[in-house]
Amino acid sequence: MGAESLTVLGARAKKASIVLATLSTDVKNAALTSAADLLESRIDSVLEANAADLLTATEAGTGVGVVDRLRLTPARVRAMADGIREVAAQPDPVGEIVDGWVMPNGLEVRRVRVPLGVVAIVYENRPNVTSDAASLCLKSGNAALLRGSSGALQSNVAIAECLRHGYEKAGVPSDALVLIEDTRHEAARELMRLDQIVDCLIPRGGPSLIESIREEATVPYIIDGDGNCHVYVDRTADLDMARAIVVNAKTQRPSVCNAAESLLVHRSIASTFLPLLEAELAEVELRGDPETRSILGPDRVLDATEDDYRREFLDLILSVRVVGSIDDAIEHIRRFGSGHTEAIVTNDIEAARRFQHEVDAAAVVVNASTRFTDGHEFGFGAEIGISTQKLHARGPMGLRELTSAKYLVIGSGQVRPG
Amino acid sequence: MGAESLTVLGARAKKASIVLATLSTDVKNAALTSAADLLESRIDSVLEANAADLLTATEAGTGVGVVDRLRLTPARVRAMADGIREVAAQPDPVGEIVDGWVMPNGLEVRRVRVPLGVVAIVYENRPNVTSDAASLCLKSGNAALLRGSSGALQSNVAIAECLRHGYEKAGVPSDALVLIEDTRHEAARELMRLDQIVDCLIPRGGPSLIESIREEATVPYIIDGDGNCHVYVDRTADLDMARAIVVNAKTQRPSVCNAAESLLVHRSIASTFLPLLEAELAEVELRGDPETRSILGPDRVLDATEDDYRREFLDLILSVRVVGSIDDAIEHIRRFGSGHTEAIVTNDIEAARRFQHEVDAAAVVVNASTRFTDGHEFGFGAEIGISTQKLHARGPMGLRELTSAKYLVIGSGQVRPG
Repeated sequence: MGAESLTVLGARAKKASIVLATLSTDVKNAALTSAADLLESRIDSVLEANAADLLTATEAGTGVGVVDRLRLTPARVRAMADGIREVAAQPDPVGEIVDGWVMPNGLEVRRVRVPLGVVAIVYENRPNVTSDAASLCLKSGNAALLRGSSGALQSNVAIAECLRHGYEKAGVPSDALVLIEDTRHEAARELMRLDQIVDCLIPRGGPSLIESIREEATVPYIIDGDGNCHVYVDRTADLDMARAIVVNAKTQRPSVCNAAESLLVHRSIASTFLPLLEAELAEVELRGDPETRSILGPDRVLDATEDDYRREFLDLILSVRVVGSIDDAIEHIRRFGSGHTEAIVTNDIEAARRFQHEVDAAAVVVNASTRFTDGHEFGFGAEIGISTQKLHARGPMGLRELTSAKYLVIGSGQVRPG
Repeated sequence: MGAESLTVLGARAKKASIVLATLSTDVKNAALTSAADLLESRIDSVLEANAADLLTATEAGTGVGVVDRLRLTPARVRAMADGIREVAAQPDPVGEIVDGWVMPNGLEVRRVRVPLGVVAIVYENRPNVTSDAASLCLKSGNAALLRGSSGALQSNVAIAECLRHGYEKAGVPSDALVLIEDTRHEAARELMRLDQIVDCLIPRGGPSLIESIREEATVPYIIDGDGNCHVYVDRTADLDMARAIVVNAKTQRPSVCNAAESLLVHRSIASTFLPLLEAELAEVELRGDPETRSILGPDRVLDATEDDYRREFLDLILSVRVVGSIDDAIEHIRRFGSGHTEAIVTNDIEAARRFQHEVDAAAVVVNASTRFTDGHEFGFGAEIGISTQKLHARGPMGLRELTSAKYLVIGSGQVRPG
């Protein structure tokens, strides 16, 4: 596919999307199963391609974390195949009737879920995104136009070929998955402006990619943004519960967007709670305000800057602030939060209600870890990302978020009077 | 408000939006009723302001149609007030539970409707949009940041002042409606880039406004686009029904987006149907393909260009094409349609099914006029526009489309294992 222009590649995906929109669930599931089987039966060729990517990365002196995310093993490829099968097992959102009614003049109106058309996804190193994204798109009747990073190109090509052949064997157009092999920045920019072809662009990458999409994109997009998630420990919190929640939210998997980055503690319990918590956060760097530093000691707690309260560390670092009231906590979150997941630990029913009512985020959690905001945990199966925007999709995006709706109206000759 | 910068105006709307998000339905309805009453009691001052706009327009030699849309009368102002009262009477979408479930670990998840925050609307001459848009925003808990045209500025200022005072009397922040009085193009551009303030931008204007938003906007937006609507008269259509539908769709109100612009006729009935139809379209200019011209005569039917099939005439002009099959009709619509409303007239159940399944538009209609795609007709009450895009809202946008959702999660100390 390498030599073709983006417009040609996009047109192929568009053409396939017209066919995909009308496929039955059975046919789509057969294509997914066939793709999963083929991927599993070709593990060796996928690993070979991956070895080439790994070699290039190592020679370029790429960091250990990045190389690890790039690395495939037989188990990881099998997990990708199982992921495709899980998508096949999920209910098909297409055709679902969202609502419907009869108008006074007898017109029957139904609103039904339909595919978006062509979904473009720009992503970074992990090759498993290729199969995850492609299978979610296929199940929801969309063509996937995928653009991974140059570092994973060989792996992505090998995986895409398996899926495409798998689809073809099941009688589904192979262009249901079109991989863009041009990994230059200009190609990404061109993709963002492929009007009439791309129905939805989903960027999965860092702030610079998001920024460039906001500036450049003319196609519709959904932002999968940062998670600067807070836990607020209220005056009436059960302190053991609060400790377990903060430890889990911060340390269970610090590199993901639903990990907590910031802790707010009510002043009336701060001197009791913070030492209790600190004992279980030995490996976590703390950056706090003067009160936190005076309670835990200036050696244990670095001086937090404004920037520390704003940052998504994605690391074993936690910003901490003592607040005088739930109002101060809500105000702090309003100022610094990124609209992903915000949690309160409290035993006060009115505090819980106010926090859920007044905090503006995709998920507002009472007495549980922030780590649950995720497609699998919410029961959607695989997710294509977590939206931090308010239009179309907010929070974990599963198959349903990859659909639009259309109105189907049936009459018997009605015309509009007047 | 005139002298303040857009950032200051936006910040005022943002601040108001935080209060609006938590208002009860009763308070919002009281504010709307108060605003409607005040508008009605100040008809004279509104008409005076309108007279100033009309004078400017007439002196500038503005066309009769534009002046008519700009003109307010006592009846029109009363209709605006009644429109506000109708919005008050509609159900409040905020707080509605979209769905909810309990996760295996006992976490309770609810997804509830919440306001978007600040909704910005850019619109053209009609002053009634000021009260329509503002009242829909208020009812859905959003602050309205409105930017009308320079030609209607005095009218808009007068209307906005009535609404703002009405809100205030009911204890609702007057900044629930902020009118931008700077009508320069640069101000519109600045509004499109007011990140962190504008949660949703809705343009109500022509193609050049839409184009400029696609290019310039960094805030989220919903396109209220063109309607190049088709009626396809199938082989098995009841010809009397087809005639009534085409006449209604084309002539009942040709200047609106859900009027038909293009007619497709199956070849097997063309020579019967077209003369039957033509007799009722005396005042409509026809632009057709060679077959249409040969049936109705080249004097009656102009030669249609590609552009004629693409255009939204908004006038008593209809493009016509004879097609050989439903496939050709669907293909023509795929190529030239704008994704608004497409209709088929048929008695063939399979043709109806295929047309609804395969045509990609906000509304796909069987055996009825295209003119029904409209918030009032669909039973939503007033509409803020008709979306021709696929994300978030598609088709008529009412109060519900002015909301987002958030996940509310309630636990009892759950943390994520592993």
